[in-house]
Amino acid sequence: MLKIVLDAMGGDNAPYEIVKGAVLGIQQLEHMKVILVGDESKIKDILKDFTYDTERIEVVNASEIIDNHDAPVVAIRKKKDSSLVKGLTMLKDKQADAFISAGSTGALLAGGTLIVGRIPGIERPALAPLLPTKKGMTLLIDCGANVDSKASYLVQYATMGSIYLENVLGISNPKVALVNIGSEESKGNALVKETFPLLQQTNLNFTGNIEARDILYGDADVVVCDAFVGNVILKLTEGLSSLLIQEIKVGLMSNTISKLGALLIKKTLKKTLKKFLTSEYGGAPLLGVNGLVIKAHGNTDHKNIVACLVQSQKFYDQKINQKIQEKLGNEQDIKEGI
Amino acid sequence: MLKIVLDAMGGDNAPYEIVKGAVLGIQQLEHMKVILVGDESKIKDILKDFTYDTERIEVVNASEIIDNHDAPVVAIRKKKDSSLVKGLTMLKDKQADAFISAGSTGALLAGGTLIVGRIPGIERPALAPLLPTKKGMTLLIDCGANVDSKASYLVQYATMGSIYLENVLGISNPKVALVNIGSEESKGNALVKETFPLLQQTNLNFTGNIEARDILYGDADVVVCDAFVGNVILKLTEGLSSLLIQEIKVGLMSNTISKLGALLIKKTLKKTLKKFLTSEYGGAPLLGVNGLVIKAHGNTDHKNIVACLVQSQKFYDQKINQKIQEKLGNEQDIKEGI
Repeated sequence: MLKIVLDAMGGDNAPYEIVKGAVLGIQQLEHMKVILVGDESKIKDILKDFTYDTERIEVVNASEIIDNHDAPVVAIRKKKDSSLVKGLTMLKDKQADAFISAGSTGALLAGGTLIVGRIPGIERPALAPLLPTKKGMTLLIDCGANVDSKASYLVQYATMGSIYLENVLGISNPKVALVNIGSEESKGNALVKETFPLLQQTNLNFTGNIEARDILYGDADVVVCDAFVGNVILKLTEGLSSLLIQEIKVGLMSNTISKLGALLIKKTLKKTLKKFLTSEYGGAPLLGVNGLVIKAHGNTDHKNIVACLVQSQKFYDQKINQKIQEKLGNEQDIKEGI
Repeated sequence: MLKIVLDAMGGDNAPYEIVKGAVLGIQQLEHMKVILVGDESKIKDILKDFTYDTERIEVVNASEIIDNHDAPVVAIRKKKDSSLVKGLTMLKDKQADAFISAGSTGALLAGGTLIVGRIPGIERPALAPLLPTKKGMTLLIDCGANVDSKASYLVQYATMGSIYLENVLGISNPKVALVNIGSEESKGNALVKETFPLLQQTNLNFTGNIEARDILYGDADVVVCDAFVGNVILKLTEGLSSLLIQEIKVGLMSNTISKLGALLIKKTLKKTLKKFLTSEYGGAPLLGVNGLVIKAHGNTDHKNIVACLVQSQKFYDQKINQKIQEKLGNEQDIKEGI
C-alpha cells in the first residue's frame, strides 16, 4: 500500500479541493492510502460530505500554516507544527512514500533539501515542471532554488529529467536540449559553454542548444537551464498566456459584432487556450531528494490533486529514485575513481 | 541636415522594403538625408519606381552581405565591403549620424563595439528593444552580447535606458525594475543581489525587483537584466505570442460554427493581437556606442523603417549620447576620484 501525505492547507483552494482530490484519488487508485495533514476539524468537516474508504484516508492535525509571505528557511525551522514541516518529516521518517503540496514553493524546496535530504551523489535537487507546448509537454529543469548553478548540476538535471520522462510519461530516449541564446555551440554565457561539452559526453539523447522561442514548439523533451532562467521561462509563459487571453476576451467584448462572434467561437477558443493553461499531468517533482516531493500549482483543484496522486503512483512503481541513484551514484563513483 | 545610413541588404524584406522606407521617411522628415548602402544596381532599380528628392537619398555600393550564418566577429573583420561594415565605418568617420540595420544582430553588436566604439565611461554597450505590454511599452535592457554581466554594467544599463525613455519616448522619471525570481530584495542569483543595492544608491526611479510574469503587465518602464536573461525574455515573448496566435487560428478553422464566428471577430482579434506583435516605435538602439546604431527587426517593413528614421531624429535632437556621457562620464570620474 502506497502512502501519500497531502498538505491539506497549501494553495489557493485549500483545504476543500485538496480533500476532495484525496477522496476521488483513492477511488481511482486502489493501492493507495492518503494522509491529509492540516487543520483537523476543517478537514473532517469536509470529509463528512463524502463517502470513502475510511481505512485509506487518515487525518493528521497541524496547527500552523506556512504561506508565501514566510521566509522559507526560517519558516521550516520555526513552524514545526505546520502541515509542510510535519508532512516532510513523515516522508523523511519513512512513514510515507510521497509528499504533495500546493503551498509555498520556496518553503517546499528548502524543506525538501533540509528535512528529507538528497539522494547520495546528487549535488542539488531540481524542480521540474512540465510546460505545455505545441506538440504536448516539455520538462523544464531547474525551476527551483539553485540560481547560481554549476555545469555539473545541469548535467545531473538532464539525467534526472530524462529518467523521469522516460519512466513516468513513457517518452523513450527523450531529447535533451540546453537553453541558450543561439543554436551554435560557441554561443552563450560561461555556464552553458561549460555545460555543452559535458552533455555531449553523456549517453543522453542531447540534441544541442535550444533558443527560448523554440521551447514552446516542443522540439525538446527535457529543457535544461539554471533555476534563474527556468523561473523566468516558467513565469513569463504563465504571465503572457494569461495576459493574451485576458486581452482577447476584453477585445471580443468591445463591440456587438465581435460579441456575437465570441458566442460562436467560445467553445473552440476555450479548448485551444486550455492546452496552454492547465496541466493534466499533476505537479512538478523535486527531483534528487531522497523521497518523492511534488509541488502542485498554487491554484490547484481536485482534478489536479488526483493527477498528482496518479503521478506519485507511477513515480513509485517505476522506482525513479532508485534509477536516479543507480545512474548518478555510479557516475559519482567513476568521478571519484579518477 | 541629419545623415542616416540604412543597411539596404539587411533583413527578410531587403532591399525593397528598406528602400521604400527611405523614400517615405524623407518625405516625412524634412531635415534628413538617407544613405542606402548595398547592391547599387538593385537599390537604383527599386528607386526608379519612386519620386523623391534626389538630393536627400544617396546610394553607396557594397558588394558583400553579412548574414545570420556568418560568425559575427569574423564577418566584421573579413567582409570589409559588406553593407554593415561600410555603414558602421561611415558612422565612425562622422560621415553619418546613425546606422540602421535589420541584418544579423550578432554582427551589428560586434561591429557597433569594434568599429564605432564605446562612449567614454561606458563599460559595455547594451541592446534595448521595446516589449509590448498591457499598458504600452517597456524597455528591456540588455538583449545584446554581454551574457556574463557585472553589477556595474547593469547599473549603467538602467541609467542609459532611463535617459533614452525619458527623452525619446517622453516618459518622465521612468520606473526602473530589476528582473528577478521574486519580489523581495533577498531573492536571486549573485548578480542581481549585488546589483540591487547599487541601483538603490542611484537617483533613478528604482522600484525594486520584477518577476518575469509581471513584465508584460507594464508596471516598470525600464526592465534591467543581463543579456542571457534578456534574450530569453525577448525570444520567449515572440515565440509564445506567435504560437498562441497560430493555435487560435487553427482552432477557429476546425469547425463550421467557429469559422462563422471567426469572420465576426476577425477585425477585433487582429487589433488585439497586433498590439503584441508589432512595434510602431522603430528598432532597438544599441545604447552606449559612440554614435547611434539601431537594430530593426528581421522582418521589418517600410513602415518600421520610417519609424526607425523618426526614432533616429528624436535620438539626435534630444542629444541622447551627450546626456549618457554627461551622466555616466561624471559617475566614472567620481569613482576614479575615490
